[in-house]
Amino acid sequence: MSFKKIGAEDITFFKSVTNHVFTDTEQLNRCASDETEDLHYLPEVVMQPSSVEEVSKIMKYCNEHMIPVTPRGAGTGLSGGALPVNGGVVLDMKRFDKILNLDKRNLQITTEPGVITQNLQEYVKAEGLFYPPDPASKGSCFIGGNVSENSGGPKAVKYGVVKDYVLNIEMVLPGGEVIWTGANVLKNATGYNLTQLVVGSEGTLGVITKIVLRLIPAVKHDMLMLVPFRSSVEACKAVNAIFLAGFTPSALEFMERDALVWSMKFTKATGIKLPEDIVAHLLIEVDGNDTDVLYKDVEAISAIVQQFDIDEVLFADSNEQKQTLWNLRRKVGEAVKSNSVYKEEDTVVPRAELPELLRIVKEIGKKYGFQSVCYGHAGDGNLHVNIVKGDMSEEDWNNKLPQGIRELFTEVVHLGGTISGEHGIGLVQKPYMDIAFTSIQLKIMKQIKNIFDPNDILNPGKIF
Amino acid sequence: MSFKKIGAEDITFFKSVTNHVFTDTEQLNRCASDETEDLHYLPEVVMQPSSVEEVSKIMKYCNEHMIPVTPRGAGTGLSGGALPVNGGVVLDMKRFDKILNLDKRNLQITTEPGVITQNLQEYVKAEGLFYPPDPASKGSCFIGGNVSENSGGPKAVKYGVVKDYVLNIEMVLPGGEVIWTGANVLKNATGYNLTQLVVGSEGTLGVITKIVLRLIPAVKHDMLMLVPFRSSVEACKAVNAIFLAGFTPSALEFMERDALVWSMKFTKATGIKLPEDIVAHLLIEVDGNDTDVLYKDVEAISAIVQQFDIDEVLFADSNEQKQTLWNLRRKVGEAVKSNSVYKEEDTVVPRAELPELLRIVKEIGKKYGFQSVCYGHAGDGNLHVNIVKGDMSEEDWNNKLPQGIRELFTEVVHLGGTISGEHGIGLVQKPYMDIAFTSIQLKIMKQIKNIFDPNDILNPGKIF
Repeated sequence: MSFKKIGAEDITFFKSVTNHVFTDTEQLNRCASDETEDLHYLPEVVMQPSSVEEVSKIMKYCNEHMIPVTPRGAGTGLSGGALPVNGGVVLDMKRFDKILNLDKRNLQITTEPGVITQNLQEYVKAEGLFYPPDPASKGSCFIGGNVSENSGGPKAVKYGVVKDYVLNIEMVLPGGEVIWTGANVLKNATGYNLTQLVVGSEGTLGVITKIVLRLIPAVKHDMLMLVPFRSSVEACKAVNAIFLAGFTPSALEFMERDALVWSMKFTKATGIKLPEDIVAHLLIEVDGNDTDVLYKDVEAISAIVQQFDIDEVLFADSNEQKQTLWNLRRKVGEAVKSNSVYKEEDTVVPRAELPELLRIVKEIGKKYGFQSVCYGHAGDGNLHVNIVKGDMSEEDWNNKLPQGIRELFTEVVHLGGTISGEHGIGLVQKPYMDIAFTSIQLKIMKQIKNIFDPNDILNPGKIF
Repeated sequence: MSFKKIGAEDITFFKSVTNHVFTDTEQLNRCASDETEDLHYLPEVVMQPSSVEEVSKIMKYCNEHMIPVTPRGAGTGLSGGALPVNGGVVLDMKRFDKILNLDKRNLQITTEPGVITQNLQEYVKAEGLFYPPDPASKGSCFIGGNVSENSGGPKAVKYGVVKDYVLNIEMVLPGGEVIWTGANVLKNATGYNLTQLVVGSEGTLGVITKIVLRLIPAVKHDMLMLVPFRSSVEACKAVNAIFLAGFTPSALEFMERDALVWSMKFTKATGIKLPEDIVAHLLIEVDGNDTDVLYKDVEAISAIVQQFDIDEVLFADSNEQKQTLWNLRRKVGEAVKSNSVYKEEDTVVPRAELPELLRIVKEIGKKYGFQSVCYGHAGDGNLHVNIVKGDMSEEDWNNKLPQGIRELFTEVVHLGGTISGEHGIGLVQKPYMDIAFTSIQLKIMKQIKNIFDPNDILNPGKIF
């Protein structure tokens, strides 16, 4: 591939399309990073279009002139999907920030991609409705980024991930054409499912400009408990016991001791006892419309976890305490980041294989000399493995560690799992795609990419 | 395209692959039809392979020799997807009839495609688990056909359609290569979603040989009621009122009077009163694990429907009565078929548009001179419009009616809907694809087909 460097004539064209064309250092630097490690790739120009027509004109021009375009949401991604690794244009979607239509009669919402996920959640909640998927970064991430990465979050265990809520997507193809991927319906057996092909495609097939989501009725009540375990493997086993007893909690999160300790320090949380012998916690939430049923569920789940080697269960007795506990869980990622250089692996396995996965992580850590802090959505079998650099040498970090990660992912795939549950492949997991897929599968995916983007100008260098 | 006629040398090869090669009239005739109208297309040979290796060898050979191959499940399809419209081979999957592994620890099942859906449901139910999607033909249809059509059924309104349960698919590509489409995990952000591309692709991208489905804990109780309305539009409005009040029934089915009358006659059902002024019914089911909550739900839903113009609600008070009511609903399709030549349109719109859709169906019927019997999954906005030939002339049926259907589908798309909710496009809805999709969308889909099947030998003549 040979991309064109952006010149004065290109800038002139871009300025004829939108007033929001930036080449100043501050804007270029802002769009050079996301939340992935400490990676930094400068774009040549940043644009903030605000209409589908503007996006279409920009894409058509860039496609004709072989200028790479990287779409960007809020920059909260953890796999480097929004990094302009080939320079060129960053298409910053922050001005696509309008909720277009809440269709209460049909329990659907049409939104632009630059709306912050939490704002969208609160908007529909005020109308008695519920949009469940919310990544840890819900207060800053964009819904468009969530769709691009097929994000999950703690509610996924009961309510599903983003793909389970997207009905229809408007997007601009690299050639400038605008299409809708489906229809605004709950059931659809009409042609190939382009909607599901675009969800999770990490901005490589088109630029998302509108999203139609299905909503569900709001849930009235929830209850939260924190269960301290004396063994991580026991904690993972308890996760499965809860499901086998017929319960589906609305969240079922796992945290190793270090994850909680670091997050407590980072958030300056108080009031959580942490005895010496506790090595892991489960954060368990149930929700529903009938408090009697919820009390029964909580009681039954308590009885189940009592069969394992646990300390005293903490039941959140106020909204404030719920907030504190959830904040602790949500801030683990940032806490680890503030503590050390790190790499985050987004492993996912069939739920019952979690104890074995955790054992393998620690074993490989010993072999390659790295510490890890593990936490995540245990109810989905989705374990975030944060590998901290600590006092590992630069040499080992750069050259030996990738072998360890490769070994870890190979074991994950042996367990029936795969290499990303919700963060996407983006840039940083790309070297490991051959572990998850055969050459035939990869060839099919590349051919699909080629249909949408024959010149490979849209988010090039990602996934493959 | 120019396909090869099958000759003696081909049969010799096929017999070297499997003992189950048939060219007798009985087998050819059996595979010449499905449940779609009275269509009949003879294949040249029927094969019943029983291993992925056999399927692979057959596909490779047919691909090299340009012999068309039509995969066939139980032949219960309603859009002609299994009809060998170009002759050639019918790949009858009935010997792929084994449930391979029920993984209780992970709430997953791996099955071959030729397992009857109801058998699979009962198999997992015996272990305390639940696989919800069951089309009306559940007693005879195959799970592989359900995956190919992205089938729905009455439980979809609460539990989702087939696509919401498929985790991973093993399939043979037209060139003979064998791939898995994904991983056995609940969350997956690794590459493009090939699994969701294959679900609903109507046997045009590959031959499905294994399916991994997620399961959920079994639900302990359900309650059923039949609500008679004096206006069809009122019945449709009641559907939406139930959702807006925050309830998600486990089934919410609509039947016009004729649908019920014909089905009562067909099933020889007794004990259902049908006063003269009743024109439509809703069949409403709620389910859950707590009977107190269910009674409350039933009471609340009763209060909601009382606000509309209804007669006395029938609450099913025994399992036998539930069976009778469900049987009536499930047999409507067969009852209509036994009564008259007919065409079934599988319209789907955003739920709140149902009353308008029903009005439009009747208006277009008047204009084009056809009667229609409407019923279906009202909770999903999925209305089956059975157009009965009655005393319409052959000339009008063949030449005028397609214009009426075109007008109907155009209105459906205007309402935000599409032309198939759960039956697929197959052969009979193919002429209407330009109403649902633009030429760009269709071009993308055809290019995807071309990636998987460059010689267009797998189920040719379908969808496009």
